[in-house]
Amino acid sequence: MKKYDKLVKNAVGRMVPTIVNGEEHIPFKGVGKHFPTGRKYAPRIASCANYPSDGNKTVSSLKEALVKAGLKDGMTISTHHHFRNGDIIANQIFDIANEMGVKNLRWYPSASFPCHEHLIPYLEDGTINRIEGSMNGPLGRFASQGKMKGLGVLRSHGGRYQAVQDGEVQIDITIIAAPSADPFGNANGVDGPAACGLLGFALADSQYADKVIVVTDNLVSFPCIPWQIHGNYVDYVVEVDKVGIPEKIISGTTQITKSPDRLLIAEMTAKFCDQAGIVKDGFSYQAGAGGTALSIGIFFSELLKERGWKARFIRAGSNKYPVQMLEDGLVEYILDGQTFDLEGVRSMRENPGHVNTSPFTSYNYHGKGNFAGMVDVVILGATEVDINFNANVVTHSDGYLLHGIGGWQNCLFSKCTILPIPLFRDRVPVVKDEVTTICAPGELVDVIVTERGIAINPKRKDLIEKLKDSDLSIKTIEELKEEAEKICGVPEKPNLSDEIVAVIKWVDGTIIDAVRKVL
Amino acid sequence: MKKYDKLVKNAVGRMVPTIVNGEEHIPFKGVGKHFPTGRKYAPRIASCANYPSDGNKTVSSLKEALVKAGLKDGMTISTHHHFRNGDIIANQIFDIANEMGVKNLRWYPSASFPCHEHLIPYLEDGTINRIEGSMNGPLGRFASQGKMKGLGVLRSHGGRYQAVQDGEVQIDITIIAAPSADPFGNANGVDGPAACGLLGFALADSQYADKVIVVTDNLVSFPCIPWQIHGNYVDYVVEVDKVGIPEKIISGTTQITKSPDRLLIAEMTAKFCDQAGIVKDGFSYQAGAGGTALSIGIFFSELLKERGWKARFIRAGSNKYPVQMLEDGLVEYILDGQTFDLEGVRSMRENPGHVNTSPFTSYNYHGKGNFAGMVDVVILGATEVDINFNANVVTHSDGYLLHGIGGWQNCLFSKCTILPIPLFRDRVPVVKDEVTTICAPGELVDVIVTERGIAINPKRKDLIEKLKDSDLSIKTIEELKEEAEKICGVPEKPNLSDEIVAVIKWVDGTIIDAVRKVL
Repeated sequence: MKKYDKLVKNAVGRMVPTIVNGEEHIPFKGVGKHFPTGRKYAPRIASCANYPSDGNKTVSSLKEALVKAGLKDGMTISTHHHFRNGDIIANQIFDIANEMGVKNLRWYPSASFPCHEHLIPYLEDGTINRIEGSMNGPLGRFASQGKMKGLGVLRSHGGRYQAVQDGEVQIDITIIAAPSADPFGNANGVDGPAACGLLGFALADSQYADKVIVVTDNLVSFPCIPWQIHGNYVDYVVEVDKVGIPEKIISGTTQITKSPDRLLIAEMTAKFCDQAGIVKDGFSYQAGAGGTALSIGIFFSELLKERGWKARFIRAGSNKYPVQMLEDGLVEYILDGQTFDLEGVRSMRENPGHVNTSPFTSYNYHGKGNFAGMVDVVILGATEVDINFNANVVTHSDGYLLHGIGGWQNCLFSKCTILPIPLFRDRVPVVKDEVTTICAPGELVDVIVTERGIAINPKRKDLIEKLKDSDLSIKTIEELKEEAEKICGVPEKPNLSDEIVAVIKWVDGTIIDAVRKVL
Repeated sequence: MKKYDKLVKNAVGRMVPTIVNGEEHIPFKGVGKHFPTGRKYAPRIASCANYPSDGNKTVSSLKEALVKAGLKDGMTISTHHHFRNGDIIANQIFDIANEMGVKNLRWYPSASFPCHEHLIPYLEDGTINRIEGSMNGPLGRFASQGKMKGLGVLRSHGGRYQAVQDGEVQIDITIIAAPSADPFGNANGVDGPAACGLLGFALADSQYADKVIVVTDNLVSFPCIPWQIHGNYVDYVVEVDKVGIPEKIISGTTQITKSPDRLLIAEMTAKFCDQAGIVKDGFSYQAGAGGTALSIGIFFSELLKERGWKARFIRAGSNKYPVQMLEDGLVEYILDGQTFDLEGVRSMRENPGHVNTSPFTSYNYHGKGNFAGMVDVVILGATEVDINFNANVVTHSDGYLLHGIGGWQNCLFSKCTILPIPLFRDRVPVVKDEVTTICAPGELVDVIVTERGIAINPKRKDLIEKLKDSDLSIKTIEELKEEAEKICGVPEKPNLSDEIVAVIKWVDGTIIDAVRKVL
């Protein structure tokens, strides 16, 4: 099987394969231009007659569960990343697969982290054919070096739900690491010693996978309440000593920035939103977990407090900062897709206003709408932006694939998308002629905020008009680029081979770009 | 189209059609004997590109929503019955259909009530071809008289979910009357002037119907929390003055019995459970909304209090009695499928231990298990029981189809199913040679409690053994029948035609019995 074949130029001018790992894919056609015509994936009809009448689905070990689930060559095995760098179950699964001599698996995690470097030998020996999912760090570097046998496929959180829902990815076995579960398989992330918040990234897997295994270190009597995962989808339940390391859900990116430049960017962004009339009583926003984004949240919070306003909701990735706002009455709801610290976990457990969401509710583009379009402003990071406002979030300027897409692409559908970014990093301009990898088509990126000025997408005449008398330094994107180049010089192109190592999906399942091997 | 065709004798010896309203159906094969081989129904893949980017799906009237949804001849239109006899939306839907001249609709309610007598003219003039769903009262009488154009199909709550999930019933348009909703279509039953508790009966409809309309009289800003119905499934939202009459969710059957005979039956049932070792710390039960069942709940509650025990959960239909137990700390959770009074509604809104469930979680037989088997004891009513422990819950002894199945069939899978019933009603024996309609195969009915003695199903040797020294009057079912006949005489058979007016589905979608026209 060829890793990829039949390249065509897509609607953003990138050459992308239409055959990936032996399967047909559609090239990106433009935002909102691809209309699916099929039907959702239809899982097999189960019957209670085939399940224990007393509801007890426990088996004695993960290996037993995998064997009963029929683990064999070529299967698609999925896991979730709510433990982020504190995941321990994925490594165990492939240890077992390797021990059993199973080969050629497709691993379909909702994201992978440095803790999964352990799996590199299995990627080398063919236990795992490829990873379809975000690759943060070492696995991304491995893929960038062209060492993965199959082609990587990166999807946004919403795109992952879409791919499963639409049957593009058929999961044979999913393994859900659950901080709490009952013997029937009802499970949640808010209780138990390894509480990580919620399990939304495993929702699609639970609904559509052929076999569903829940692994927990906190087995409670039926009913496990809340049941974020429904036992009615679950085949086997396994009790283990430890299901994950919740302290490691905190990443370095969840600390407020101390860099004066980034604080300036944060302040400029908040001011921009204020002057554009976005910050108001009842408004809503989503800010990621990066240091700059967190600081913007704090500026918003201060504005609200000052004026006696209250936000309607924050879409999150939660941590202690939005939690504080919720508890201070500065926001009515946190609509949370993944908790980034233990304060987020606590709040979700205790506060009915801290609501757990999923990629289905928030991000699935192949639903009857999703939440993304209802958010007034979303603040996102980016590794690169180009003069057409196209943005990159997965590769660095040196071409290495080191980040996942997360909910980033999905969030672009908000009423206003702002990328607060430094104008250059390590003397490499961030604003350039062409991004290495297009993850966002420029038409969806509204504003770029840098420490040396703000560029508004010319399509957003309304914002340009609102800011025309602003004291903020409003520039064109070309001016920003020139300024960066004046300081750092024109950046060199990354040294890439023609060989493709991964493709980047758009939210509708089409291929928006391909990632090349780094030479 | 013939209403029905090709009768065969099924596994409980009843002659049932295998062609119903032009479609093929499978005769009952025995409990746990039918294994589905297909895949779930696959709804069309939607795209956000076809929905308002700001999430606002409101349209100005129910008629506009129905027109936009493409209402036309022959469609299947579904509604839910959380307002029970206080529903007002179903009548409006068919008023509109009639006004538009639409014909030959299949109405697929989760249940119908006397308030829907309004629809009889539409059943007569062909606006509605048939009702597939429980028919409580006048509509059942109408069907029994052979007046419905199509054949009625009665399903349990779980069977209704199964039929939709499996694609046996494909819903064209569902209309969900929601006490609270936002413009995106997120909806719940716990808030708003018409709060009725929950919306679980509309879950399958929201997930699988081609078009989904939410109707509310309490439109709130996004997000409507909790979202018992996900807006991601919803096409249109309609604001109306009044969405239902919540006071009418209380039916006559939710009052504790004052009849001395029934109180005696309740006490005997509770004693039986105690002596059988069923009542214990951490046990669980489900008692319906009938007067006797409620009284049994009170006996259980007293036992728990006396002994310092706590039930793990009550499966409900909730009302003030289980709510009191929850608030008194006598039970940890109420797992509630439908609230039967406003105290139930309040409790569900306020108490995280009062959990909303759905026919999917609780009852769907074509899931990977369901909750029914985990309940220690379930107390159900019945119109008739026979000497093989087969039971009837839909027709009276005179043959009239006056009740729905509800969750009754689904509950039979509990660890112990008890039918506390009077030995006769209006001088007609309730225990007889043969029930008019088999809704429960005898093998699933464990115990019959009457005011004149208790019969244990001979299959339950364990219970017979446990009760062998009991002071309760344990008899055989034949003895109970003889005693009834000694007092009332041998009952006459109902005066029925051969003509079939409705079929009764088993929980797996097979046909367990047929209901004949009353002469």
